[in-house]
Amino acid sequence: MKHILLIGAGRSTKSLVDYIAKHAGKADWTMTICDQNTALAEKRASGDDRFNAISLDITNEEERRGAIEKADLVISMLPAHMHVPVAEDCISMKKHMVTASYVSSQMEALNDKAVEAGVILMNEIGVDPGIDHLSAMKVLDEIRAKGGEMKIFESFTGGLVAPESDNNPWGYKFSWNPRNVVLAGAGGAVKFMQEGKYKYIPYHQLFRRTEFIDIPHYGRFEGYANRDSLRYRGVYGLENIPTIYRGTLRRPGFCRAWDVFVKLGMTDDSYQLEGVKDMTHRSFLNTFLAYNPQDSVELKLMHYLQIPQDSELMEKLEWLDLFEETPLGLDKATPAQALQHILEKKWGMDPQDQDMIVMWHKFGFSLNGENKMIESHMVRKGKDAENTAMAETVGLPVGIATRMILEEKITTPGVHLPITKEIYEPILAELAEEGITFEEREVEYKGY
Amino acid sequence: MKHILLIGAGRSTKSLVDYIAKHAGKADWTMTICDQNTALAEKRASGDDRFNAISLDITNEEERRGAIEKADLVISMLPAHMHVPVAEDCISMKKHMVTASYVSSQMEALNDKAVEAGVILMNEIGVDPGIDHLSAMKVLDEIRAKGGEMKIFESFTGGLVAPESDNNPWGYKFSWNPRNVVLAGAGGAVKFMQEGKYKYIPYHQLFRRTEFIDIPHYGRFEGYANRDSLRYRGVYGLENIPTIYRGTLRRPGFCRAWDVFVKLGMTDDSYQLEGVKDMTHRSFLNTFLAYNPQDSVELKLMHYLQIPQDSELMEKLEWLDLFEETPLGLDKATPAQALQHILEKKWGMDPQDQDMIVMWHKFGFSLNGENKMIESHMVRKGKDAENTAMAETVGLPVGIATRMILEEKITTPGVHLPITKEIYEPILAELAEEGITFEEREVEYKGY
Repeated sequence: MKHILLIGAGRSTKSLVDYIAKHAGKADWTMTICDQNTALAEKRASGDDRFNAISLDITNEEERRGAIEKADLVISMLPAHMHVPVAEDCISMKKHMVTASYVSSQMEALNDKAVEAGVILMNEIGVDPGIDHLSAMKVLDEIRAKGGEMKIFESFTGGLVAPESDNNPWGYKFSWNPRNVVLAGAGGAVKFMQEGKYKYIPYHQLFRRTEFIDIPHYGRFEGYANRDSLRYRGVYGLENIPTIYRGTLRRPGFCRAWDVFVKLGMTDDSYQLEGVKDMTHRSFLNTFLAYNPQDSVELKLMHYLQIPQDSELMEKLEWLDLFEETPLGLDKATPAQALQHILEKKWGMDPQDQDMIVMWHKFGFSLNGENKMIESHMVRKGKDAENTAMAETVGLPVGIATRMILEEKITTPGVHLPITKEIYEPILAELAEEGITFEEREVEYKGY
Repeated sequence: MKHILLIGAGRSTKSLVDYIAKHAGKADWTMTICDQNTALAEKRASGDDRFNAISLDITNEEERRGAIEKADLVISMLPAHMHVPVAEDCISMKKHMVTASYVSSQMEALNDKAVEAGVILMNEIGVDPGIDHLSAMKVLDEIRAKGGEMKIFESFTGGLVAPESDNNPWGYKFSWNPRNVVLAGAGGAVKFMQEGKYKYIPYHQLFRRTEFIDIPHYGRFEGYANRDSLRYRGVYGLENIPTIYRGTLRRPGFCRAWDVFVKLGMTDDSYQLEGVKDMTHRSFLNTFLAYNPQDSVELKLMHYLQIPQDSELMEKLEWLDLFEETPLGLDKATPAQALQHILEKKWGMDPQDQDMIVMWHKFGFSLNGENKMIESHMVRKGKDAENTAMAETVGLPVGIATRMILEEKITTPGVHLPITKEIYEPILAELAEEGITFEEREVEYKGY
């Protein structure tokens, strides 16, 4: 018998818990689910009598270590910065650990200790990061096995709303943590490489440096760059590649409108606004515009950011009720928290809404003296607001990796990303059984 | 006999050391001058046999405490973040301390301990902060003594180049620490208040939200906002003032051109650029522009930031040799360090160049039911690149405060700013003897 501890029972754990339930009987697993929100933990645990829920204060070391001690493997679905103490406990008590988050430098620094303790710390095994690694490494390895030399690698993922449920001018609804959406890209410059040239974009220009991506059957998207694409040269074995670029997908027009929030300073999370209690949507907007008692908020905004009066951009902002004297409804807030609160009033998913995950890779390479290009994409729609494609594509790979570790199909200790064939091949195969598949096609080579 | 320890012997200490020398004989003072750069300390100490120079590693606690122990008063001209350990030593050894830097929250937190130890920690007694406090508080107190109610307070200072030495299209040369100029405003949103409304400007828009200020005999300047004007409501006793705004002066056109560097991300100091060794001015610029092998760096820049080809802005950038294939000349650099290095090649002061300090305050108030407005300004020119107005206006108030503390004319212990009449009156009087005077005039009241 093996025991799993799942820390965090939020949106993205629904499919994960279902997956564990599906295998728990045959594999003789039990699972303890904990969350700050005990009701949520109990809800997740209610589907299977092999599961139980506990309440756990993750910052209480004794409580935390007590819960980890009883497990063979810990799945941490905590916010990324909270994984490290859990990982340290796992090493000291010789428990494996799985997370869907980016490896932090502190996590990376635990590698030697993990190896010594014989502990596997598997990270970045959700959708992005996660399925992107699996699907990219598969094609990269195939190209390199044939003797191809990589010249261009681009990879974009977006968590969007399915066309069936897309009924707002932004083409967007929140299918995961709204805070992460509001703060996306903030906090540092974007780094990538094109045709051998290093390129940097400051955060405040990020949403004006997009590119269009067309995906068969799904139309046009736009992509903005993720923070540090350069890191993946080392991870993917692409040390000498001239072009590497990872990014995030939105529907066309989103980024230009989002740029208004960035330019105004509304996504700043570093200070508390004054007078939040009495704020309306309109006065929140006005606090970022110059004082002028004669001119309207609308005119000041259009003039400041050079927005034409008849542009779709104004329509998008109006649709959010940003110009209305609607009370904000918060007692205290940073600009980013206030903006998130306004967006949540309009971008929430209705119960029957379907979300959509879109992933797209581009591989440019030379083979036998000829330049070639492969594009690969995956689109997955959710069932409804509870059973989202986001939760499914994050939870399933976490579940599969958990199973593979418990069944000793993954055995190498250390801090890992899912980038070796032994890992990506079986996980991709199992995802395909669930209908999560990539369509690959050769296209005409286009450099820059 | 009293002994002074001066830590830091950089540009802004020339007048300070001269001032101490002027008084040292009669008052029976001696002074030890230390600096990382021993030659600089020796140069400063060479003018008076009551002075001696030592080399001191300020991060070595034992060395530092040893030097402080021998003194009655410590003048710290270190970078602002290095004052706190010195202040802690001063408290524990009961020595007074004077700095020209902004009070940090850590410095403020030492107040109770300083009071208990009977130690005076006098801060913000340079030019800005410093003379701005003295001169503003004088007028504010006069207005309030008459029963006036403050409605508008604005205060701007600039360290510029005198018209006689202004021979470049930027109207600017470095008269103090270039790093502080490059990083000015970076790192957080600007906060101020206009007509009762809180206003915030993100760093990346700061240089597009300027206002013009005309100063008699000196023409037009432009001002951009300093980081946190709101703080001065408490400091100046202006808790209920509807408009408060502090800023920095430049010659018109500077800010719009500087905005290009901000928009490109060239003032970012948070990451190391790749490939710095092989960089030229032109390739440094290009690293912030989209890749395109057909288009020139010039065209890409103009298109990206919507700069007309025939604008003065392009002339300013060209004058800096920014489009030239001139080797950058650094081995490693953040974007801000690389930019600073390029600017230093062109914005350095020639030996005979005169700098110019410009300070301007605006006071709007109602008195006996009538709205009134006073403007006050001070302009001071330097003699040459060594004897700058910047060094003089920073060093003199520090020297005068030092004398007043040693002569027990300032006696209240604690963490202080020079905002009380007992402090500002004698210091302003002594500055006037040196020819540093404010011209006050009543002007027509203009609100917003």
